[in-house]
Amino acid sequence: MKCTDCTLLVYIPIRRIRNKRVRTLQYRFATRLSLAPVSFLDELFRLSADPSIISFAGGLPSTPLIDTEGIARAAGWVLEEDGSAALQYTTTDGYLPLREYIAERYRTRLGSRATADEIQLVNGSQQCLDIFAKIFLNPGDNLGMERPGYLGAIEAFSLYEPFISAVPLNNDGLDLAVFERVIKKGPKFFYGIPNSQNPSGVTYSQENRKAVAEILESTCTVFYEDDAFGELFFDGKPRLPVKKYLPDQTVISGSFSKIIAPGMRIGWMYAPKDILRQFNIAKQAADLHTNFFCQKILHRYLMTNDLDTHIHNIVSVYRKNCHLMCGLLDDLLPELEHTTPEGGMFLVAKLPEGLSARTVFSEGIRAKVAVLPGLPFYTDGGGDEIIRLNFSAASEDQIHEGLHRLARVIKDCQRG
Amino acid sequence: MKCTDCTLLVYIPIRRIRNKRVRTLQYRFATRLSLAPVSFLDELFRLSADPSIISFAGGLPSTPLIDTEGIARAAGWVLEEDGSAALQYTTTDGYLPLREYIAERYRTRLGSRATADEIQLVNGSQQCLDIFAKIFLNPGDNLGMERPGYLGAIEAFSLYEPFISAVPLNNDGLDLAVFERVIKKGPKFFYGIPNSQNPSGVTYSQENRKAVAEILESTCTVFYEDDAFGELFFDGKPRLPVKKYLPDQTVISGSFSKIIAPGMRIGWMYAPKDILRQFNIAKQAADLHTNFFCQKILHRYLMTNDLDTHIHNIVSVYRKNCHLMCGLLDDLLPELEHTTPEGGMFLVAKLPEGLSARTVFSEGIRAKVAVLPGLPFYTDGGGDEIIRLNFSAASEDQIHEGLHRLARVIKDCQRG
Repeated sequence: MKCTDCTLLVYIPIRRIRNKRVRTLQYRFATRLSLAPVSFLDELFRLSADPSIISFAGGLPSTPLIDTEGIARAAGWVLEEDGSAALQYTTTDGYLPLREYIAERYRTRLGSRATADEIQLVNGSQQCLDIFAKIFLNPGDNLGMERPGYLGAIEAFSLYEPFISAVPLNNDGLDLAVFERVIKKGPKFFYGIPNSQNPSGVTYSQENRKAVAEILESTCTVFYEDDAFGELFFDGKPRLPVKKYLPDQTVISGSFSKIIAPGMRIGWMYAPKDILRQFNIAKQAADLHTNFFCQKILHRYLMTNDLDTHIHNIVSVYRKNCHLMCGLLDDLLPELEHTTPEGGMFLVAKLPEGLSARTVFSEGIRAKVAVLPGLPFYTDGGGDEIIRLNFSAASEDQIHEGLHRLARVIKDCQRG
Repeated sequence: MKCTDCTLLVYIPIRRIRNKRVRTLQYRFATRLSLAPVSFLDELFRLSADPSIISFAGGLPSTPLIDTEGIARAAGWVLEEDGSAALQYTTTDGYLPLREYIAERYRTRLGSRATADEIQLVNGSQQCLDIFAKIFLNPGDNLGMERPGYLGAIEAFSLYEPFISAVPLNNDGLDLAVFERVIKKGPKFFYGIPNSQNPSGVTYSQENRKAVAEILESTCTVFYEDDAFGELFFDGKPRLPVKKYLPDQTVISGSFSKIIAPGMRIGWMYAPKDILRQFNIAKQAADLHTNFFCQKILHRYLMTNDLDTHIHNIVSVYRKNCHLMCGLLDDLLPELEHTTPEGGMFLVAKLPEGLSARTVFSEGIRAKVAVLPGLPFYTDGGGDEIIRLNFSAASEDQIHEGLHRLARVIKDCQRG
């Protein structure tokens, strides 16, 4: 049967259920959906809920380090002092005092000249990926990103039907020869995570950043600097962003998810005003504005708590966890090459020749240890030889036990 | 100067500032932005912040009717009982108990067979517009909507570059002859607000809904039923949705913004599972998930407060305000035709022949009364003869004073 009223030819099968003719509707989805990679993120959050599995697969910050009491005090204050305003609609750009706080922190931490009108609040920095792609990409446009690249970015960008060129990551940052070739193709933007990249844990050296900026300087390619982890360096020292060298040609996305609480979904885009104006139009069309209640709670929290001390506590734990994990990997699985992060929440390990990450993943689940296979971080089908390990969510005991389980799984896989 | 490394020809003017050569970057935005209508929403929220202006231009629910104390109790409980979980990441679909509550309310209020796995939580129902358009529209696809149509929908849809056909609204719903012609073109979906439409305040009659469903039945066009106002009927009685007649071919978007609090940004999409699966992929790419903290607060609030009584209180005020406004319009400006809403938050009035809504708007601002000109609700340049008036946000005194100001403005404009 042919749909009678459509200009498109859509076949609608007829079937009989309990003697009733039932039309099975064919939904005519957009072609962009055929490009969406199979998503792993949601599956990960589900896995991390099974308490018998020690999971290094997810990307959660440490739950015990969330300052629930401090947030409760801030929430109580906001509701008492300013409740009905905080629960009402607001403007798209976001709560001005919070944007001022963010700009001020850029000025003091990085010597930037950020102002509040260069900051737009969003629902977690994942929303920056969607909106930025939306305002820049026509179908078929070029964009560049790291290889491996952040899977949430691949998911967001893919829905705008771009052609993605991937630039390998070395231990000190982007492979500059490949980067230069990719930039010659004139991509609309290049997306990278110079600080403790997800998944690799690699941090671009300062020389690498300078070289990246020099290659970009005479082009129209915007650098999209995702900075989810820049506050989480183990030595407590900030690294200068690429934006420092190319202020008008770089945007930075940031997030409170890793330093305060992910469940509030507050991130931001820090961008030149001409870009932010378009970004704001698309943000308004997307959801009017970000949760105002949480913007106010967060601002109150920041005004009445010492963020630097709080971050210092988080970093102490992550540093210890990371060193423990790297040490155990070296002891138990010396044949595994792995990155040695300077900060952040992740590292990657390269499996011994011939081992498939998918096999290690599924055997790991049977042995109650979860790792993330590399595939979703590759846009070209690669990644089955690497696994990503998260070191922020687990306790030291769990890391110890989990890596022993993992070592047994890998040895079993190698034997069999 | 020509951008050296771009495949696209982009001219970069060089200018000198204080003897320094400065390159002015040309950002290469996506073509979709050229289709974005000039936005009024943000301007409205700003206007509504000027206390000397009596504003009927915005779309705010009544601030004094937000149950700040009840929400504070719920927030306190969530943070005490379950704080760190509520502040952590969660799954994209949203908090299951809240989705179950929403499904249960559809079952009891509308006799629907809704289940929790047909409900996806979003950042206010505006996000449904963006994501639904994203999963259905290729550039150049047809879609249908009401004339006048909700401006937030026009903003969201336009960014996906559709061809929009508008169907006039009569006092009892869609103009069925035009609707049938538009549906013959095979639009991917038709977007409508059958309950107390924004901007018009029109409610489709039950006969109109049935006829709409009959026209759609043999087609592949999905009906997108925006139900932001279905709980706000002055007679307290729900109307059967179009989805009742066409369950597999209709999606309903809903929102807590108008009945509890907009600042929490919690809305939902109620849709057939095959649509919701794609919707969920795009939602995850857009922002991972909706604010979990507020999902939990809202659920606790609903478990410990009587929503029906709360809605009854809201409706009592809106009904009184609406009757007051309609009565004043009839008394002070008898030459103005206006709709007479059965619920919701808005009505529209048609200005006397020859008067421009833009003029009434700008003269109104000078006289400290704001109305919304009809233009942003039209995709074809129409609407300069109508104004939208909101009756939910102002007090009775403000409605009284504001309409006297408006009457003077219109009479002054008529005199020329």
